[in-house]
Amino acid sequence: MSRTPKPLLDGLRGPHDLKGLQPAQLEELCREVRQDIVEVIRALPCGGHFGANLGTVELTVALHYLFDSPRDKLIWDVGHQSYPHKMLTGRVGRLSTIRQKDGLAPFCKPAESEHDIFGAGHGGTSISAALGFALARDLAGEDSHVVAVIGDGSLTAGMSFEGLNHAGDLNTRLIVVVNDNGMGISPNVGALSNYLTQVRVGKPFNEVKSAFESLLHRLPLGDELLEGIERVDQTMRHAMLPSIYFEDLGFEYLGPIDGHHLDNLLRTFRYAKTRQRPVVIHVMTEKGKGFPAAEADEGKMHAVKPSSSGPKVAAYTDVFVEMFDALAARDERVVGVTAAMLDGTGLVKLQAKYPTRILDVGMAEQHAVTLSAALAIGGRRPIAAIYSTFLQRAYDQILHDVALHNAPVIFALDRAGLVGNDGPTHMGLYDFAYLRHIPNLVLAAARDENELRHLLHTALLHTDSPVASPIAVRYPRDNVWQLDPPAELRCLPLGVGEILREGSGTAVLAIGTPAVSAWRAAEQLAASGLDLTVADGRWLKPLDTKLVLDLASRHERLITVEDHSVVGGFGSAVAEVLASAGCGCPLHVLGVPDEWVEHADRSEQLAQFRLDTAGLAQQFQAICEGRPSGLQLVG
Amino acid sequence: MSRTPKPLLDGLRGPHDLKGLQPAQLEELCREVRQDIVEVIRALPCGGHFGANLGTVELTVALHYLFDSPRDKLIWDVGHQSYPHKMLTGRVGRLSTIRQKDGLAPFCKPAESEHDIFGAGHGGTSISAALGFALARDLAGEDSHVVAVIGDGSLTAGMSFEGLNHAGDLNTRLIVVVNDNGMGISPNVGALSNYLTQVRVGKPFNEVKSAFESLLHRLPLGDELLEGIERVDQTMRHAMLPSIYFEDLGFEYLGPIDGHHLDNLLRTFRYAKTRQRPVVIHVMTEKGKGFPAAEADEGKMHAVKPSSSGPKVAAYTDVFVEMFDALAARDERVVGVTAAMLDGTGLVKLQAKYPTRILDVGMAEQHAVTLSAALAIGGRRPIAAIYSTFLQRAYDQILHDVALHNAPVIFALDRAGLVGNDGPTHMGLYDFAYLRHIPNLVLAAARDENELRHLLHTALLHTDSPVASPIAVRYPRDNVWQLDPPAELRCLPLGVGEILREGSGTAVLAIGTPAVSAWRAAEQLAASGLDLTVADGRWLKPLDTKLVLDLASRHERLITVEDHSVVGGFGSAVAEVLASAGCGCPLHVLGVPDEWVEHADRSEQLAQFRLDTAGLAQQFQAICEGRPSGLQLVG
Repeated sequence: MSRTPKPLLDGLRGPHDLKGLQPAQLEELCREVRQDIVEVIRALPCGGHFGANLGTVELTVALHYLFDSPRDKLIWDVGHQSYPHKMLTGRVGRLSTIRQKDGLAPFCKPAESEHDIFGAGHGGTSISAALGFALARDLAGEDSHVVAVIGDGSLTAGMSFEGLNHAGDLNTRLIVVVNDNGMGISPNVGALSNYLTQVRVGKPFNEVKSAFESLLHRLPLGDELLEGIERVDQTMRHAMLPSIYFEDLGFEYLGPIDGHHLDNLLRTFRYAKTRQRPVVIHVMTEKGKGFPAAEADEGKMHAVKPSSSGPKVAAYTDVFVEMFDALAARDERVVGVTAAMLDGTGLVKLQAKYPTRILDVGMAEQHAVTLSAALAIGGRRPIAAIYSTFLQRAYDQILHDVALHNAPVIFALDRAGLVGNDGPTHMGLYDFAYLRHIPNLVLAAARDENELRHLLHTALLHTDSPVASPIAVRYPRDNVWQLDPPAELRCLPLGVGEILREGSGTAVLAIGTPAVSAWRAAEQLAASGLDLTVADGRWLKPLDTKLVLDLASRHERLITVEDHSVVGGFGSAVAEVLASAGCGCPLHVLGVPDEWVEHADRSEQLAQFRLDTAGLAQQFQAICEGRPSGLQLVG
Repeated sequence: MSRTPKPLLDGLRGPHDLKGLQPAQLEELCREVRQDIVEVIRALPCGGHFGANLGTVELTVALHYLFDSPRDKLIWDVGHQSYPHKMLTGRVGRLSTIRQKDGLAPFCKPAESEHDIFGAGHGGTSISAALGFALARDLAGEDSHVVAVIGDGSLTAGMSFEGLNHAGDLNTRLIVVVNDNGMGISPNVGALSNYLTQVRVGKPFNEVKSAFESLLHRLPLGDELLEGIERVDQTMRHAMLPSIYFEDLGFEYLGPIDGHHLDNLLRTFRYAKTRQRPVVIHVMTEKGKGFPAAEADEGKMHAVKPSSSGPKVAAYTDVFVEMFDALAARDERVVGVTAAMLDGTGLVKLQAKYPTRILDVGMAEQHAVTLSAALAIGGRRPIAAIYSTFLQRAYDQILHDVALHNAPVIFALDRAGLVGNDGPTHMGLYDFAYLRHIPNLVLAAARDENELRHLLHTALLHTDSPVASPIAVRYPRDNVWQLDPPAELRCLPLGVGEILREGSGTAVLAIGTPAVSAWRAAEQLAASGLDLTVADGRWLKPLDTKLVLDLASRHERLITVEDHSVVGGFGSAVAEVLASAGCGCPLHVLGVPDEWVEHADRSEQLAQFRLDTAGLAQQFQAICEGRPSGLQLVG
């Protein structure tokens, strides 16, 4: 489907141009925006968030029609619902570049537009951010509006509660739009979700009302009262509807309203603008609205991907699922824990098989990790499958609740390293650094799918060993190398790496999938006479210090390679060993520099930082020839 | 006051012995426990948590009387309310050793007792842990009870919400006791706190009821109905009481009940034990109950300290307060943000002076940091004063919301390094490691009170400089060195350290307060002919690589010293530089080893790790004489 012209949309220079439109034109604009998303996003080579954005069309048009961005601050919680916002703020022409290298960012990005006041890739930050802007406004004596738009999934994040709790107490002017499509990324988890569903179907109020009516019937003259009871409805409704959740937290509650009914939205927002206190507007939307295939297939519509050409290649996530199944089948203590990533971690495929043993806790990593600690202390073997980037949310809980208790939790660190199109907020570039100093924790990275199999097998055995401890296994968002599966699973000794190739002069010590790229690069260079040693460190902690010192003693220089920031990671651990040993062997740390990584394909990012086979070959050669490469710490 | 004999309490071998007591004896036991806390804790040389424990006496007796620990799991959220629990579980004789080296731990500690099923130093973990134990029980087909006891302050932590939300959804058997003393550590923050207060005074229900009655009056025959209206109360109460907050989240709500009325507690717990679903029991207690001075002086009774002898010595916190005042007075953009540590950070002293500019957000570090990011983007200059250990909760928010936006937030990292009597959950030993790899972030540590003054002054100037960025300044929980205040505040150039003493042979590069100890140690050693160079690195990021390489080139060996884990910290950053430069100068990294640090006085801990002047002198001498010391990474 090619893009059709959109007279209204294409003529917009910015949100200010909306102000002059007539109601019928606003409706037409909504149709154009929706049509454009269908035409453009579906054609994206890298896929894109689709359903969520079809759901926010009317909402976004109404917000930009009534509010005055950027003077009024619109904050989108997790920006993948913000495509219509991008389209209405001067970026419609670039929509087809979204998520691609040098194209529009997948989420809101302040550097991209003055209308992107706050970026967000992890859920639940918008209420805190909105309150910060509201307080900054109050302190400056200004009078702008601040609006946070948050999905029901993000409401399950603890920090959303923290923000609501503080805002309700301060009682300043602030609008929180709850964009409730009843699903979040996976079908939503949690009591709050059940509660929102109750609001949607209006059941509690009706139940209470009929209980009340039945009571009245039993009272003297109750029957005669029933005719007038409708007039009590408003009071009853106000007092009894579950809106009280937000009201308990100090917000005025408006809703639920139909998020695809423009008039309703405009009327409600107009009213909300007059309020001098925090207001929640509960808006009901349909993910994929206006695109029948999307409405029908809810789960898949979070992000669409282009239909793949050629035979399907397995990803590391698939291997994790296979291994989870194998471990869960042989050990009934194994439990899977995920935080709103049932689909992303692959565990959704096993949910029917292990209905009580796969737990999705919602967008709540802190809770997920502490829950896992207690499950482990309570005799289970939880495998917490959490993306490297999202586990950042639970750093404190890993330290105190898991490691200090030495609870045998297994972390499956998916999406470690460069992650591709989701951009800087989704990079798994820091886990070595934020985990390495935690006492008791064992940390490994898989160089290929078979090592991942062995490591997960090893991890479960480790939790019953005399040196049992929490253990994390890291793997990337990538396709596997397509090796033959191993004849049998092996228990890999802790803290022991592996020499992959013996050479001389220069030794390369890599960890994770870059070990294979380094190996391949060395094979290429061997043809031109450069004979490198290549080893897979495998364990970040305990580090194979013997291997490090052995390599250093036998070579003129050492190169470390990792799919991680060059600060505080594997190279840093190796540097500690070399420096402590007074070993003068020069070290070159190759990895991702100390800067933000923009969205692009993972393969493009690996190429950008010369961490793919070709790039590593170049870097190795340059280092061996004395040309500068790698970590530039020394001025 | 010396300890008086306690016939019942002293005769208890464990909680099992409670089961045989008569009601009157239980009351007497409560009196004994309370009396013992008053007699013993007040006499502690290191102070102790006092008020909270006086508040939980009846609650604890009732729990251990009705539940069967350790088969039933009792989980104390932030263990400083757990002294009575320790006393009833075989540790009454050691109460006088609490918080001291080799004595009872300040919080629950599994290694100390089988009844301490889960340790906790940071608030809000108990509901997640309890749910984990409950699920482990369900999966094992067992039928024990799980009880979490959580203070109202800890309910403001986002992860408490995450736990409630998940537990309410799963609907398994679980009891959450909300120990509501209406204050938390500082007076409680947040709408939820207001809400709990409303429950206490019962106002909303009464208000709604009279609104309803007034409506009925206006209806035909309404007056005649009023007599019967009392019978509607139960329905109305159920529907309208703010208990709905917990009910919205899927819990059965019981309360509020008087937490000092043993019969009430026993009756309610007995009922709760029969429930097959999650139950919240809302218990009202008085902090300091039974000790008039404590009841009257609420704020101070969180922890008592012995009255100091001799003239008061200022702490780093006092210098921070002085500087906050100076900066806030000269720049109206300065705003203070604290997370339930108004008292601990010292900002409470300035609250009256800057009522709208000092924000306590509750036990909600994630929210505190994202709020600060938005305040900064909105034109303010937030100074987020958060203990190093608690900032761990906001690691993800520092990375994404502050650093990725390059928001000019100033972090005042109080309680960095070894913190003393609060034990492993309060150590500030990891901040270098969890912050060093974050792009954009500038990070410094103060070696003395004047450097802290200059650094805070520098931090504010930095946020307006061409290279503006977030900046963190680290200082310990300690008294200052008592230097003369500086004549004027200086702007310290970023990434530039300072040589304190020129020597030869061995160079010591330290950061933070250990720089002064190292300097003093070097002065002592100079008398015996060992002439060391000593430098203050001052900046962890940007690191003074020029200084590092200069020192390495002019000396036979380099020693780094830090009040931080030896993994991933300052020494690690120096090792990266040396290794990358191919510099063969041996490096000895002195700091805190990669293990948990138990409670003791900070001075005892510094001595234990030989990081005080005497210990450093020993270590320096040993290193110079070729005896092993420091980081033992190399086998």
